[in-house]
Amino acid sequence: MTTALEQAIQAKIDQLTKPLGALGQLETLAAQICRVQQSLRPQLNNPSLLVFAADHGLSSEGVSAYPTAVTAQMVLNFVAGGAAINAFCRQHDIALQVVDAGVAFDFSPDLPIAHCKVAKGTVSALQDSAMSAAQRAQCKAHATRLVSEQIERGCNVMGFGEMGIGNTSSAALIMHYVTGQPLEACVGRGTGLDDAGWQHKLAVLEQAVQHHGALHDTEAILCAVGGFEIAMITDAMEAAAKAGILVLVDGFIATAAALLSVMRSPASRNNMVFCHQSDEAGHALMLAHLGADPLLKLNLRLGEGSGCALAYPLLQSAVAFINEMASFESAGVSNKEE
Amino acid sequence: MTTALEQAIQAKIDQLTKPLGALGQLETLAAQICRVQQSLRPQLNNPSLLVFAADHGLSSEGVSAYPTAVTAQMVLNFVAGGAAINAFCRQHDIALQVVDAGVAFDFSPDLPIAHCKVAKGTVSALQDSAMSAAQRAQCKAHATRLVSEQIERGCNVMGFGEMGIGNTSSAALIMHYVTGQPLEACVGRGTGLDDAGWQHKLAVLEQAVQHHGALHDTEAILCAVGGFEIAMITDAMEAAAKAGILVLVDGFIATAAALLSVMRSPASRNNMVFCHQSDEAGHALMLAHLGADPLLKLNLRLGEGSGCALAYPLLQSAVAFINEMASFESAGVSNKEE
Repeated sequence: MTTALEQAIQAKIDQLTKPLGALGQLETLAAQICRVQQSLRPQLNNPSLLVFAADHGLSSEGVSAYPTAVTAQMVLNFVAGGAAINAFCRQHDIALQVVDAGVAFDFSPDLPIAHCKVAKGTVSALQDSAMSAAQRAQCKAHATRLVSEQIERGCNVMGFGEMGIGNTSSAALIMHYVTGQPLEACVGRGTGLDDAGWQHKLAVLEQAVQHHGALHDTEAILCAVGGFEIAMITDAMEAAAKAGILVLVDGFIATAAALLSVMRSPASRNNMVFCHQSDEAGHALMLAHLGADPLLKLNLRLGEGSGCALAYPLLQSAVAFINEMASFESAGVSNKEE
Repeated sequence: MTTALEQAIQAKIDQLTKPLGALGQLETLAAQICRVQQSLRPQLNNPSLLVFAADHGLSSEGVSAYPTAVTAQMVLNFVAGGAAINAFCRQHDIALQVVDAGVAFDFSPDLPIAHCKVAKGTVSALQDSAMSAAQRAQCKAHATRLVSEQIERGCNVMGFGEMGIGNTSSAALIMHYVTGQPLEACVGRGTGLDDAGWQHKLAVLEQAVQHHGALHDTEAILCAVGGFEIAMITDAMEAAAKAGILVLVDGFIATAAALLSVMRSPASRNNMVFCHQSDEAGHALMLAHLGADPLLKLNLRLGEGSGCALAYPLLQSAVAFINEMASFESAGVSNKEE
């Protein structure tokens, strides 16, 4: 059903001085931003990127090419401004908020990070539930509060990134449960596993699936195999969407959170802008499951919200063209000969 | 052969705090910019976009969905700041220079455009050569001077756009001559032809090919079927590349100029950044011919250099990450377990 607003959006776009549809996917994006903001003059205000960091019990099973200590080291790198996401956020004037969702390290309380540590990493999903119901509830409380804080500073477009050695394993399990894809299609090389490493990761994740059996809803999946950062992103996306915020979706792990968010709250999908298609094998299938056409395909496989920051100028371009371009009538340009 | 500089570039990228290759195509781009600038600390200075406008004799044969008058009307729209390219150049602080390469309209000499009109449009390629050798020489003189002016203002990255009703026909003929692809694969729908319009366009271009016979070099092709804007872009790309400037390549028409530029001066290819893959049917084949992997695939089909401006922030990101990111050593981050 096409609403009056949708008709008005399309009419406005089609009157601008360019051939019909000539801005392609940028027109689709502009229309989405208008729908989310319920406005023909959309605006992007005080963009922010929240990077959630956490450690994973599964990382003790040798599923990653990097040691667990890197999660905390990278948090300190974010704070020092030396990571890729720092460079991209500076470039686009995006406020970066680093969140300790559950890193296995004692950060100084003076560090400029949101201290939301639920525990020092999850439990290995081979042994038990990755997190308890109480821990899961803590994730939700933190995420909701963090989103509210961003809204209070006037933010209406939010990206969500992550850092967590081992978290492609958690994301692959989530993908398997939500999309029904076989585990082989969900498991990728993460930060750089070789063939033997990939086989081992697949075997570990098969064990996890055997251990937990069938899981059908967001809460059960998150408790069984989730990470604290993925749980918080799931809740943050839902809270942001409910508040009318544009939600920037990054790569494989953030999209696992998007799958869970949309499973529980299908309307969240309307607010999601899929920023890129990652090089991680399963990501294209995740995006297809969500009917998403990502803005960038640059073979990134970094996380941190880097794809959100890199795609952000395209959102600005979408807003710029719909607000700033002349119409055929105002510019005295002849329209297509019918 | 890998030079010492190339080794140093790769070593620098691989020491940054991210998994090896995790920034995908952005790493390839950063390395290219370093090679072009012969530097491990690349910089983008005073970017500019030159939009060349011209009319085409072939447009009298009914090959476009829009009337010829639109070329001049759009030039006035560029000057007034109301076109898509104006919005995108403002967004990224790119200096926009509009060039009258040969529009069939008398512009006031007071307008802030580069007045390089060779003639009021080319001759129809169905009747004669599109341009004379003398006109061709004028194109080169104008293009060389315009590039020099940009270099004098400190520009080291230049995009080239175009506006010209009928110019997808000229570009399709050029593609056919340079790549050897059959005409059906080169002819697209331009600004929005329907099936019958496409068939007619194909028939007209087949006549043009019959009229001119085999054409083997840049000069012969440009004189027979070129447009003034395409000729100037061809020369401008070559002049910019020779001066060590990064050359931003836009869509179907600009890439036709890139084909001609590379055919005459293969080293030009090294300086070209292919900004996007257009929705115009033949563009993917043109890019394949050049071995190019474009940055954006947004189904644009606008021209004006719009793809250059939209992709420009990705060049800035490439430069930002290589200059600003911490190394594993400086940040105290553990590298991959070998």
